[in-house]
Amino acid sequence: MSPNTSNQIWIYDTTLRDGAQREGLCLSLEDKLRIARQLDELGVPFIEGGWPGANPKDVQFFWKLQEQPLTKAEVTAFCSTRRPGTTAAEDSLLQAILAAGTHWVTIFGKSWDLHVIESLKTSLEENLAMIRDTIEYLRSQGRRVIYDAEHWFDGYKHNPEYALQTLKTAIDAGAEWLVFCDTNGGTLPSEISTIIGEVVEALPELKGDFPQMGIHTHNDSDTAVANALAAVLAGVKMVQGTMNGYGERCGNANLCSLIPNLQLKLGFDCIPAENLGQLTQVSRFVSELANLAPDEHAPFVGLSAFAHKGGIHVSAVEKNPATYEHIQPEEVGNRRRIVISDQAGLSNVLAKARTFGIELDKQNPACRQILERLKVLENQGYQFEAAEASFELLMREALGQRQKFYELKGFQVHCDIVPCDSDSICVPYALATIKVSVNGKDILEAAEGSGPVAALDAALRKALTNFYPVIADFELTDYKVRILDGNTGTAAKTRVLVESSNGLQRWTTVGVSTNILEASYQAVVEGLEYGLTLHSSAKAALSSS
Amino acid sequence: MSPNTSNQIWIYDTTLRDGAQREGLCLSLEDKLRIARQLDELGVPFIEGGWPGANPKDVQFFWKLQEQPLTKAEVTAFCSTRRPGTTAAEDSLLQAILAAGTHWVTIFGKSWDLHVIESLKTSLEENLAMIRDTIEYLRSQGRRVIYDAEHWFDGYKHNPEYALQTLKTAIDAGAEWLVFCDTNGGTLPSEISTIIGEVVEALPELKGDFPQMGIHTHNDSDTAVANALAAVLAGVKMVQGTMNGYGERCGNANLCSLIPNLQLKLGFDCIPAENLGQLTQVSRFVSELANLAPDEHAPFVGLSAFAHKGGIHVSAVEKNPATYEHIQPEEVGNRRRIVISDQAGLSNVLAKARTFGIELDKQNPACRQILERLKVLENQGYQFEAAEASFELLMREALGQRQKFYELKGFQVHCDIVPCDSDSICVPYALATIKVSVNGKDILEAAEGSGPVAALDAALRKALTNFYPVIADFELTDYKVRILDGNTGTAAKTRVLVESSNGLQRWTTVGVSTNILEASYQAVVEGLEYGLTLHSSAKAALSSS
Repeated sequence: MSPNTSNQIWIYDTTLRDGAQREGLCLSLEDKLRIARQLDELGVPFIEGGWPGANPKDVQFFWKLQEQPLTKAEVTAFCSTRRPGTTAAEDSLLQAILAAGTHWVTIFGKSWDLHVIESLKTSLEENLAMIRDTIEYLRSQGRRVIYDAEHWFDGYKHNPEYALQTLKTAIDAGAEWLVFCDTNGGTLPSEISTIIGEVVEALPELKGDFPQMGIHTHNDSDTAVANALAAVLAGVKMVQGTMNGYGERCGNANLCSLIPNLQLKLGFDCIPAENLGQLTQVSRFVSELANLAPDEHAPFVGLSAFAHKGGIHVSAVEKNPATYEHIQPEEVGNRRRIVISDQAGLSNVLAKARTFGIELDKQNPACRQILERLKVLENQGYQFEAAEASFELLMREALGQRQKFYELKGFQVHCDIVPCDSDSICVPYALATIKVSVNGKDILEAAEGSGPVAALDAALRKALTNFYPVIADFELTDYKVRILDGNTGTAAKTRVLVESSNGLQRWTTVGVSTNILEASYQAVVEGLEYGLTLHSSAKAALSSS
Repeated sequence: MSPNTSNQIWIYDTTLRDGAQREGLCLSLEDKLRIARQLDELGVPFIEGGWPGANPKDVQFFWKLQEQPLTKAEVTAFCSTRRPGTTAAEDSLLQAILAAGTHWVTIFGKSWDLHVIESLKTSLEENLAMIRDTIEYLRSQGRRVIYDAEHWFDGYKHNPEYALQTLKTAIDAGAEWLVFCDTNGGTLPSEISTIIGEVVEALPELKGDFPQMGIHTHNDSDTAVANALAAVLAGVKMVQGTMNGYGERCGNANLCSLIPNLQLKLGFDCIPAENLGQLTQVSRFVSELANLAPDEHAPFVGLSAFAHKGGIHVSAVEKNPATYEHIQPEEVGNRRRIVISDQAGLSNVLAKARTFGIELDKQNPACRQILERLKVLENQGYQFEAAEASFELLMREALGQRQKFYELKGFQVHCDIVPCDSDSICVPYALATIKVSVNGKDILEAAEGSGPVAALDAALRKALTNFYPVIADFELTDYKVRILDGNTGTAAKTRVLVESSNGLQRWTTVGVSTNILEASYQAVVEGLEYGLTLHSSAKAALSSS
């Protein structure tokens, strides 16, 4: 892998290291391995795996990859320069990075005199020696070196001569890549262009093919992506960033935005063109493993990135998508969505119906009726933007196409909690009883669970499985609760969103009530009903074909 | 108000109109008025109130402002050019905008030939006439006009001659501001600079003081803020955007990022310098009214914008904040936070303790003990990053400073739900009984509520109020539920975050359990306990002073 293709921008992913610094983010060893393999498959050429000296999880990560290497990507191990006042060979941090067994290593060193003096508490001279020794030692051990110039822009602004000396030292010691890091994220795109231009003038080595320059930006000024683009236009060939822009504080440059901007808009090559359509799926995979709700408004890959709500936009997009879309959503594996909401006009309802395979006529009185019902329910706190399955059921009801699978007669839930001797309360217990009527026959069932919603779900399934055995395949895959009017606290209205799956499809339903169990029940029940609807239309399609 | 101060950038807020297009966002009339008054107080000079022809809420909004005007800001009414094939005076849309009674009106017109032909279904000539007639008519009625050139950049790229004609028409008709809109959000900063440069060359009128240029960007390429900054550096004097970047699809340019970038970094004047410190509070106020969780990772104003998690960063920031912060958080009314998490080193725990007013020594064995306990609980799913009150209680416990106000003996919750005749289930009912021991005395209480958590909260308060009357002042202000392992559905572990308030302070506590009621109970109880702790230390401080 050598940086000689003129049109290539080398993507360097640091989700597993810098991304994991994000508040609220914690990845297990298994998560890290799964993410690395997905990025490899996507065609990301450099994947920073972690700092092997800093914690045992990162050490294991590299071992696991030695046993079962990635197919194409280079995995890099990250580390600081050696400690002050020692030798590179003696520094345990550098022994740990060698033990990681990667071809490439990424070494970060200090560019900013303030950091050398205040954080490292050493001399400016010793910092240069640390950079030189570390890189030379790693080169002597057969490693290829990426040099991350930490706090590059701040350092350069405060003391350009010294900052340039650190870079010159890294070049002379044998670093193949020099990466300008905007560690504090405070730099604006115009400064990025100017400073990189000045650096190239000051260090003629950077005008050739070797070494190459890279950029690493943070989003504290809300310009991380633009900063990286400005650097590329100034001649940089490597872009460091993270999936979904995860990272400390306001995050790192978001690769899910950078890759399509570079590839679709600026005409660079980043990942194989045929893989770009995997981007949305990989973005969501990473957020799933990180256990973070995906950002629905994320550029390119967000659920709302190609969503149309206003009436004018919807009718224009229906005529010609280019009128309100900057790229085709399919290019990045996303899709267009017509949003249902309070503001919905008739054209939204018609467009939405079409996505459910329902052909509606504007003149059909059911259209107005659906709009009215929508307004009433949204006023009560229902939200159908995220609960499309519930909206489809509502629509089918207005059209007389909603199938009743059973009728609820009532339910009771009982929880009994007694603290145990240790500090925490133990073995939570809940009992639910439910009475439903199926085909005119009353069924009474009871079930237990560790929580009230689980008990209720179990009782309902018990009551219905004899009639609808397919229910055994349904699973609740997500459950979200939101309080609607925060200022009334626990007496407030609760909105529950439930995501269900039959192993092939996923769908979301909604329930609203001042009682969280009732809201949960509504959403769970509609989830089952929608699954049964899917099943019976699939059966109908089979028998008619 | 005239745009003659050379260093002034005129901020134009469109949260109430374009921002409200965001999926999931719905503002009531009262919300809109409250937001407008906050923006006025912040010193935003232009506030776009809405499209008075499009819906009754926007009509009422302008009436209310006529009754009780803003103090300084100009509120503008938004509208399209007249319809094809009519006259301006006859068009009901323009009558509606006049009835709004504002000094300024914002008219958007088509710049892109494709839109004229495909969406408006009219001729290129008629579109020019629509722009001219509309602006001339509004000028003749005493209005000052801002002209929003919709799809400016796409239009210019496809047919620069025609796009320039639309702009020239608006200038000749008397528009005072010409705003370049990147409606689809697909333009990159480098193109913004180039195109604005070309426009200024093509239309010499734009080189003088009148008319002035503005910019309106969307975030589909993740560069909305950078695009607006590029436009300002190319000579534009008005920046349109929204609070928190709300807006359709991926949102509009975020004013919470633009204002500090322009003011603190580029040295422009946007809002009175002494008001900049209100920015974080106004941002959160808007998200509260919009009923959207604030983006914790938002630049400048997010909860995590100045949060430090990694051990190295924390110790450096403690020595000198400039090492890892691009601006001082106080400048925008935000604050530094030391984050407690699994990765926490001793220095984080010590720094955190200091913010609670607890002086801890590194040698104190309680430190290690706190770190250990933290790790165990975080493995179980507790998260203290957002629940600082729970963390403080944990810390005080390790130090033997945790006051026990009562002991739980057990509780039971019972819910009984019967569907009523109409389509929905009615009158939810829950009953809770609780047994606690206070000062060696057992108290048994029962209470009802519309939901199980409300009933439990009521029973607990009933049991404790006689002993701690201050509890009556505590309120639960927010309640959030998250499922920890999504793939086990309703049987999964639940994490509950509860925010409580005593009218002066707010604090957040956490509970985790497979039973949502137990998790809620833990969080509610710690919320009460923390409130009592605050109360007793306030009393102690008073009596010792």
